[in-house]
Amino acid sequence: MDLALSVAPPARHLQAAAARYAGVRAATVDLAAPLSPEDAMLQSMEDASPAKWHLGHTTWFFEHFVLAPAGMEPLQPQWHYLFNSYYDSAGPRQPRPRRGLLSRPSLEAVLAWREAVDARVMRALKAGSLDVPQLRRLELGLNHEQQHQELLLTDIKHALWSQPLRPAYRSDLPDPAAAPTETLPMDWSAVPEQLAAMGVPAWPQAPDFAYDNESPPHRVLLPAHALASRPVSNAEYRQFVEDGGYRDPRLWLSDGWARVQAEGWERPLYWEPGLEQAFTLGGMRTLPPHAPVSHVSYYEADAFARWAGARLPTEAEWEHAARRQPPDGHYADCGMLEPCPTRPAAGPGPLQLFGDVWEWTSRAYLAYPGFRPWQDDTGEYNAKFMSGQFVLRGGSCATPRGHMRASYRNFFPPHARWQFAGLRLARD
Amino acid sequence: MDLALSVAPPARHLQAAAARYAGVRAATVDLAAPLSPEDAMLQSMEDASPAKWHLGHTTWFFEHFVLAPAGMEPLQPQWHYLFNSYYDSAGPRQPRPRRGLLSRPSLEAVLAWREAVDARVMRALKAGSLDVPQLRRLELGLNHEQQHQELLLTDIKHALWSQPLRPAYRSDLPDPAAAPTETLPMDWSAVPEQLAAMGVPAWPQAPDFAYDNESPPHRVLLPAHALASRPVSNAEYRQFVEDGGYRDPRLWLSDGWARVQAEGWERPLYWEPGLEQAFTLGGMRTLPPHAPVSHVSYYEADAFARWAGARLPTEAEWEHAARRQPPDGHYADCGMLEPCPTRPAAGPGPLQLFGDVWEWTSRAYLAYPGFRPWQDDTGEYNAKFMSGQFVLRGGSCATPRGHMRASYRNFFPPHARWQFAGLRLARD
Amino acid sequence: MDLALSVAPPARHLQAAAARYAGVRAATVDLAAPLSPEDAMLQSMEDASPAKWHLGHTTWFFEHFVLAPAGMEPLQPQWHYLFNSYYDSAGPRQPRPRRGLLSRPSLEAVLAWREAVDARVMRALKAGSLDVPQLRRLELGLNHEQQHQELLLTDIKHALWSQPLRPAYRSDLPDPAAAPTETLPMDWSAVPEQLAAMGVPAWPQAPDFAYDNESPPHRVLLPAHALASRPVSNAEYRQFVEDGGYRDPRLWLSDGWARVQAEGWERPLYWEPGLEQAFTLGGMRTLPPHAPVSHVSYYEADAFARWAGARLPTEAEWEHAARRQPPDGHYADCGMLEPCPTRPAAGPGPLQLFGDVWEWTSRAYLAYPGFRPWQDDTGEYNAKFMSGQFVLRGGSCATPRGHMRASYRNFFPPHARWQFAGLRLARD
Amino acid sequence: MDLALSVAPPARHLQAAAARYAGVRAATVDLAAPLSPEDAMLQSMEDASPAKWHLGHTTWFFEHFVLAPAGMEPLQPQWHYLFNSYYDSAGPRQPRPRRGLLSRPSLEAVLAWREAVDARVMRALKAGSLDVPQLRRLELGLNHEQQHQELLLTDIKHALWSQPLRPAYRSDLPDPAAAPTETLPMDWSAVPEQLAAMGVPAWPQAPDFAYDNESPPHRVLLPAHALASRPVSNAEYRQFVEDGGYRDPRLWLSDGWARVQAEGWERPLYWEPGLEQAFTLGGMRTLPPHAPVSHVSYYEADAFARWAGARLPTEAEWEHAARRQPPDGHYADCGMLEPCPTRPAAGPGPLQLFGDVWEWTSRAYLAYPGFRPWQDDTGEYNAKFMSGQFVLRGGSCATPRGHMRASYRNFFPPHARWQFAGLRLARD
Repeated sequence: MDLALSVAPPARHLQAAAARYAGVRAATVDLAAPLSPEDAMLQSMEDASPAKWHLGHTTWFFEHFVLAPAGMEPLQPQWHYLFNSYYDSAGPRQPRPRRGLLSRPSLEAVLAWREAVDARVMRALKAGSLDVPQLRRLELGLNHEQQHQELLLTDIKHALWSQPLRPAYRSDLPDPAAAPTETLPMDWSAVPEQLAAMGVPAWPQAPDFAYDNESPPHRVLLPAHALASRPVSNAEYRQFVEDGGYRDPRLWLSDGWARVQAEGWERPLYWEPGLEQAFTLGGMRTLPPHAPVSHVSYYEADAFARWAGARLPTEAEWEHAARRQPPDGHYADCGMLEPCPTRPAAGPGPLQLFGDVWEWTSRAYLAYPGFRPWQDDTGEYNAKFMSGQFVLRGGSCATPRGHMRASYRNFFPPHARWQFAGLRLARD
Repeated sequence: MDLALSVAPPARHLQAAAARYAGVRAATVDLAAPLSPEDAMLQSMEDASPAKWHLGHTTWFFEHFVLAPAGMEPLQPQWHYLFNSYYDSAGPRQPRPRRGLLSRPSLEAVLAWREAVDARVMRALKAGSLDVPQLRRLELGLNHEQQHQELLLTDIKHALWSQPLRPAYRSDLPDPAAAPTETLPMDWSAVPEQLAAMGVPAWPQAPDFAYDNESPPHRVLLPAHALASRPVSNAEYRQFVEDGGYRDPRLWLSDGWARVQAEGWERPLYWEPGLEQAFTLGGMRTLPPHAPVSHVSYYEADAFARWAGARLPTEAEWEHAARRQPPDGHYADCGMLEPCPTRPAAGPGPLQLFGDVWEWTSRAYLAYPGFRPWQDDTGEYNAKFMSGQFVLRGGSCATPRGHMRASYRNFFPPHARWQFAGLRLARD
Repeated sequence: MDLALSVAPPARHLQAAAARYAGVRAATVDLAAPLSPEDAMLQSMEDASPAKWHLGHTTWFFEHFVLAPAGMEPLQPQWHYLFNSYYDSAGPRQPRPRRGLLSRPSLEAVLAWREAVDARVMRALKAGSLDVPQLRRLELGLNHEQQHQELLLTDIKHALWSQPLRPAYRSDLPDPAAAPTETLPMDWSAVPEQLAAMGVPAWPQAPDFAYDNESPPHRVLLPAHALASRPVSNAEYRQFVEDGGYRDPRLWLSDGWARVQAEGWERPLYWEPGLEQAFTLGGMRTLPPHAPVSHVSYYEADAFARWAGARLPTEAEWEHAARRQPPDGHYADCGMLEPCPTRPAAGPGPLQLFGDVWEWTSRAYLAYPGFRPWQDDTGEYNAKFMSGQFVLRGGSCATPRGHMRASYRNFFPPHARWQFAGLRLARD
Repeated sequence: MDLALSVAPPARHLQAAAARYAGVRAATVDLAAPLSPEDAMLQSMEDASPAKWHLGHTTWFFEHFVLAPAGMEPLQPQWHYLFNSYYDSAGPRQPRPRRGLLSRPSLEAVLAWREAVDARVMRALKAGSLDVPQLRRLELGLNHEQQHQELLLTDIKHALWSQPLRPAYRSDLPDPAAAPTETLPMDWSAVPEQLAAMGVPAWPQAPDFAYDNESPPHRVLLPAHALASRPVSNAEYRQFVEDGGYRDPRLWLSDGWARVQAEGWERPLYWEPGLEQAFTLGGMRTLPPHAPVSHVSYYEADAFARWAGARLPTEAEWEHAARRQPPDGHYADCGMLEPCPTRPAAGPGPLQLFGDVWEWTSRAYLAYPGFRPWQDDTGEYNAKFMSGQFVLRGGSCATPRGHMRASYRNFFPPHARWQFAGLRLARD
């Protein structure tokens, strides 16, 4: 869908947009379906948000960024304070740590609001009454919604795990330990020094959707290096734990070691003390040894790499490898919601670059040369977070299929553990 | 009901106990009825608890303190961790500040548990299978339940007020400002120096229920003093606010002034800035000028008294006056859930000693001479809180009728504001 | 010295006042003499103050409360911000937790200021130019100075102990373990119920100095009780520790138990883990088993008493016993700066009521009936602290001789441990 | 001095090393000379350290890293706990926030220790008894000492400013506002896209000293860009302040804006509200309008650049420009200890790259490709801080002359303001 033209988009584009809108929006509601109104209100830590809030916030996004500019009065003007996340341009908002204190509106009311907003959007799409900038924001809203689909899953995982009864999100999820598995050696693909392309053209000037932070395309000098053929596995990470990795300060960044001590880290988040079991969205499960390790912070990924005599890849190294593959992998639609054990691939190239686990890179989340944020009020979307965070790449088992690409830059603070984040090794 | 005898209680006592049990237990469920499962999960501050937790905790009390000693295995052993409040003798427990993070068990499941426990208790009562100590704990459990009925109301009031939409608990509550009213002067009844009786005999050795902290009866030397004929009104407190009471450190205790500054206190909790409106369980309402002021801390009560050239009464002064009256007043069953304007009384004596608002006394919550806590595991009920708190007397508009008496000692830290707490003046 | 008269005091009174002034002021400087300028700047916790600050604050007291009203411009007006402690009437001030960040003025400059202020005061005394209210504040200032002498010692003890090298304040202090000792049984003196006198007449209306919080004299009904013949000893307290006293929540007030867990209390402050040694102002020393235990909080004193099957005495019980003795005891002038082992007394009555260790009472620090704070700006001295504190009685081995009396009320929060505070048992 | 050889260094090298050692060590003592023992104990915030601690820590460095490996027992083994900064390999240590609580050892004792250690080092140098690794650590120790010379100045500046009396460090410092000045336009030098060299060979394998984090040399693809001819001036920064820069969230990174609000930032640290005066080591002074702005955080530098329609340079861009100049500039030896107004240069190229103010780059402090930390226990020196920090370049008016080079990478967290840190603009 090329929204860069200032003329009205043709009808078949609008039809496609409507279908896509309906699909993405329904997927979010489906993800919330296993949750009771009480589950949907849980906020177990500041970084996470209640599922109900995700449902409301993504709806607010369309009401605020698409319908309001199209001249439609908000259906629920009082709720905008509640569901604005961090947009200073959109006014004041409920403090983030207090999102779990909103019993009103009820889950039911939020879902009803979703339907009403969706009906408005569909009508507008069918009537062709959205102009090109509004259609751009619609597309952005759908990508935004997909990000919150993943957050809804990781946030509720944390919220359910935080409760003494540790209930499952769904009891019908397949068991990752039951997947066929075999031990695959970690191979290394050597890459010689070269000028490499990175980033993509700015959307919507270019037709393919991408966030502003992925642009502009540019070249970097890639140093000679080698990239591991697969992510680090649970079994390998367990060796690190059993080797005393969490007790040896020499392996850790200074901030990481402070965190290990202050929060008593001894193993990945969600692992049980015996290192055999871990909490999943399907409840407590046996850890599959050959699946990628997940729920580790940057500090842990970095310490593991040091212990292993390797390092984390840079963004450029990762993207260089990923551009040579289609963005296929084990995403949320596979329905397991846990990383899968690694299996041999048909073709060449590193395995599991996409899906399963986000891979921490060794690069801080900063602007590309020539980066220019979107110049309207969506410019707050990405650009203002360019301090204190590291980039992760490739998507995870909780990412919606179709959302990922080689240039995609996710980012979290180095202590964050509640995402499906793992690591792949690299070497000079 | 005399439970002090070690022989089995007669059948008519058991019948009365069953009726009382059924009534008190049903009243709690009725109080929770206006709440959605989401409302019932709210914990807006550490001091408060979710309504669902109150429902569970009071049920736990019977399962742990009555049914378990009677040989019945708990129906929900896993939930005991969740709903134990502070009984070290009963084992570890969910940390108090994290009571709002329990989506499971659901409100529905907690209510079902209540029913199952109630059925067991009723069966046991009918079968006469509870021994005297178990019947003692049953009676204690009912008084305990009544305390939580009041807390359920004050906690949900805070939780609803804490939300930006400020929803009402019930929209059908009568308007306190609509009650007939007239200006009553504040009179003073002079009391000469005398030896006065205080406290009541220890239950269950004595037949009438009382908490251990109200015993033993003892005499104190009451100094000559005068007690005000009614509590301080909203109108009078407003004068204090308008006179700059919250800006003059000379009126405040040192800790109180620190609190005023740190938390930006400018008026009672729930009052709107214009000093005309206040949040109630029925939503935002006009403040009735001649109703007792409520939702003030000890610090505020003390500062007001200083400003007014008076002081707070001691426990002994208050109890001396209250022993001369039946414990009648405006309790929760009146259905307004706000203090009522003062009206002239038929007989002599101070007005509104009971009900409407708890009255801060100038006395710290400490043991009476000869005090002995209950000697079993209910000894934790009251005795371990004897530091850092002040005594309040008389009950409030949120106290269940029948729960109050002249010797009753409620206690809260001096900064607590979310109870229906006001004040009555005294003078030397 | 009778300052209640509005006529000028006779010359010999002024001479006595001058001598007393010179003596008290010199004593403070003597206490600071073993400290380097660096030692004198230490503030090891919020509750404590640097020795230099004590030297400055006590000087400020005279400059602000005596010389300024006498028409003398302050010698160091800029320093008043630094050395005002908590007098709102005297304007803003350096925040208490940041008193240790004042390298300027230097210790030398503060001592010079002391001399200059002292010279002014002495000149004014000799010239007879201070009026009666000013002389009243002079007397108050000297009592105030004596309190800070004790605090200087307890604060520096904490500051030196807080350092890894744990230096001694003075290396020439006698060893308390070397004092002659014998095991004295703990006897109990029974006191029948009676009306007892408490408190003293308000100074300066009455001739003998007392703080406003000790007045007015009043009667209380003392219940029948028994008071222990001596304070609890180190040996007895050690039994409590070895019996698991710090691990049994049933012995503790709820707030106390929270403190035990949060701060990892396992024994009195300053005791070494082996329970044989403790840090003193003379350095690390062997604990004398028969000396009163010290450096325990109210929570610990209360838990010990519960463990021992007894309780703490009330203020009234303690004062009743103390009024029958002269206020003699082992004060700071004995030069040991540690509590002395108990020795048999010549006459009847409880031992060591005065000196050695402050004794926690079970009473919150509150106003006596008819209490009226001083009506000028010294009214902030005591009255505004009447919440959150417990009363201690009798003085300690760090109290200046001559400062103590039976009616004296000291007060600290229940968690405070850095004073020379111990306990004496009582029983119903 | 080439220490990479494993044969003994020739005598003239040792002579030079001895002279350099003596000079650097004396310079630290000179910097502390204006401070009283009390000043030298000040720690006004966690990030800063007392001057006495700097004196001790730098001495510990030689005793621990040079003399101990050379077989010499420490002179003060007990002090190693006190003066170890962050070396886990060297054992436990005084917690950083409590460095200001060390009255012992006294300043005098620390200075005596310095002399004793220096004598040992000089003797060892003269005797030729240090082997090559020990000489390497000696050289490292001198560079380390120079870093602490700068920190001593910035830390004491903060400590003196934190006091109400705001004393000067030295009253004889020249006034920066008195320096000759003229308005220099901000020019831009355009740099075309190119492969550029960055970093230096690893020392001590290569002869010139550099920290491990500056190696290895590598090439980067420099994008086309333009670099400003001089740093941003006080006058320009003042325009930003007056234009509401501190009130407009759109200009700020999200973390930066949170900091602005939480800490009430309204202007650079040390500026007075009127924007005309600022605190300096010479006391309160008029701000010279044409001197580079200093004491701004990364957040402020970044927000200013956005306001100015520019951006901060990358490390590579800065280093590219700096490699074309000798590292000359206005360092601490000029004796003003404030940035100097910009003056026209004799030759081409950007002005004031070296000295005056550290310049924030837009790059996080991370490893260069192929980076390898020093492989002994000095490996903790730099490598473990590679998260959460941004790189600054070029040195400041508080940096010792001779310490700076084009490849030098300084790093601080983005909120740090107490360094002499300013900024230079760049453009795509």
